[in-house]
Amino acid sequence: MIKVVLLGSGNVAYHLALALNSAEHVELIQRYSRNATNSILFDSSIPHTCDLETLLTADVYIIAIKDEAIASISEKISHLKGLVIHTSGTVPMHALDSKLKRGVLYPVQSLSIKQHIEFNEVPLVIEAAKNKDLELLHQLASQLSDHIFNLDSVARKKLHISAVFANNFSNYMFTCAQTLCQKNQIPFEVLRPLILETGKKIQYMDPLEAQTGPARRNDQQVIEKHLGQLSGEHKEIYEIVTAAISKTYQPK
Amino acid sequence: MIKVVLLGSGNVAYHLALALNSAEHVELIQRYSRNATNSILFDSSIPHTCDLETLLTADVYIIAIKDEAIASISEKISHLKGLVIHTSGTVPMHALDSKLKRGVLYPVQSLSIKQHIEFNEVPLVIEAAKNKDLELLHQLASQLSDHIFNLDSVARKKLHISAVFANNFSNYMFTCAQTLCQKNQIPFEVLRPLILETGKKIQYMDPLEAQTGPARRNDQQVIEKHLGQLSGEHKEIYEIVTAAISKTYQPK
Repeated sequence: MIKVVLLGSGNVAYHLALALNSAEHVELIQRYSRNATNSILFDSSIPHTCDLETLLTADVYIIAIKDEAIASISEKISHLKGLVIHTSGTVPMHALDSKLKRGVLYPVQSLSIKQHIEFNEVPLVIEAAKNKDLELLHQLASQLSDHIFNLDSVARKKLHISAVFANNFSNYMFTCAQTLCQKNQIPFEVLRPLILETGKKIQYMDPLEAQTGPARRNDQQVIEKHLGQLSGEHKEIYEIVTAAISKTYQPK
Repeated sequence: MIKVVLLGSGNVAYHLALALNSAEHVELIQRYSRNATNSILFDSSIPHTCDLETLLTADVYIIAIKDEAIASISEKISHLKGLVIHTSGTVPMHALDSKLKRGVLYPVQSLSIKQHIEFNEVPLVIEAAKNKDLELLHQLASQLSDHIFNLDSVARKKLHISAVFANNFSNYMFTCAQTLCQKNQIPFEVLRPLILETGKKIQYMDPLEAQTGPARRNDQQVIEKHLGQLSGEHKEIYEIVTAAISKTYQPK
């Protein structure tokens, strides 16, 4: 049985608490958060504290709080003997206090308290300084998810850049689509199923293969017509992304 | 009972044939295609012809063929009395021969013979020159889908530009993510569930609200770090999309 203390009360902490609670060989023995806000959302049977001095002895302490606060909270608990991990995609492992046994468990998913998710399908990226710690972390992670990846802090940083494209930037393309629809009194509802399918396709197909549209066909006639109807950022983005797609499929 | 003849044998024709065949008040009385290729994929109980001279008398003729060929095939069948519609998002209705009763039924979805789809969830955009024809088209469309939208050729063209952003450009963001993963020996599998969730979120949330990431937070420190690790198109796209997102959420 792996004993775990969870620090935090946000989106990631919420989903981790649910997953930890349902894991067979894990015992979530305590939750910490600065104040009791949000605690109503968590299983009330998990003992809660607002005082870092009263943390129980555990095998693993999971810091699931804001990136900016990770280093300072780890200093305050630097006397702990258990493995201390954070859950951030961008903060390097060595941001944790050097006196600690350190590690990272980063769930690669957009998590929201509002939204149910099958946690066992969430990819978990793990890292630890020592082999023994990585072993324990792997044991813990495999209790939570079926998809575990070992990546060091350098690779995790690169992964985060990729995630910005995959999630943030693709979402902005949806925003452009919605803005254009609004401008032209077209209900955005028309595009929602297409957007869902765009993401679904990538579950069994590489995006390189899934690409369609005028840029892929290098259909200059349609491209020119579209550009003639766009302005500002939309036009700029259309030009640059179209050029990049064309180059990918019609290399000179 | 609406009698329909379907022209074409590609992705759209394939899914339309399935939907028409299962519609209660529709009878798909004939299929036409230039040659018999692909016909093996279609229900063999639907009479098939390769000769435009032998088209049966129907209420509606659906031209589901390549954009470039729509005008010329419509000329060849300009003697028909039924309503003749095409299924393209980009071709205007008046590309159909002017002697015909004309209309459009454009399914706004990425359709592939390989991939099952719930056709009743596909948004159908319809247009017809005359009210009486639009009525018939609406009757037909509502037999196929629960989501019908009236848009004229001008609006449909704007919708197509929006769809380029929503589908083609977002897919290219996935390609960028995959390329970056490959460069850094990170398995793309790590990002697939996030990509699915990105599309799922838009089913119940507006993309403007769903936006997250360093650009939305205007987190210059992270943005600078990311830019330092990118080059070529990736860097260019990162810069321009980040600027556009920042401007959306932190207007000057």
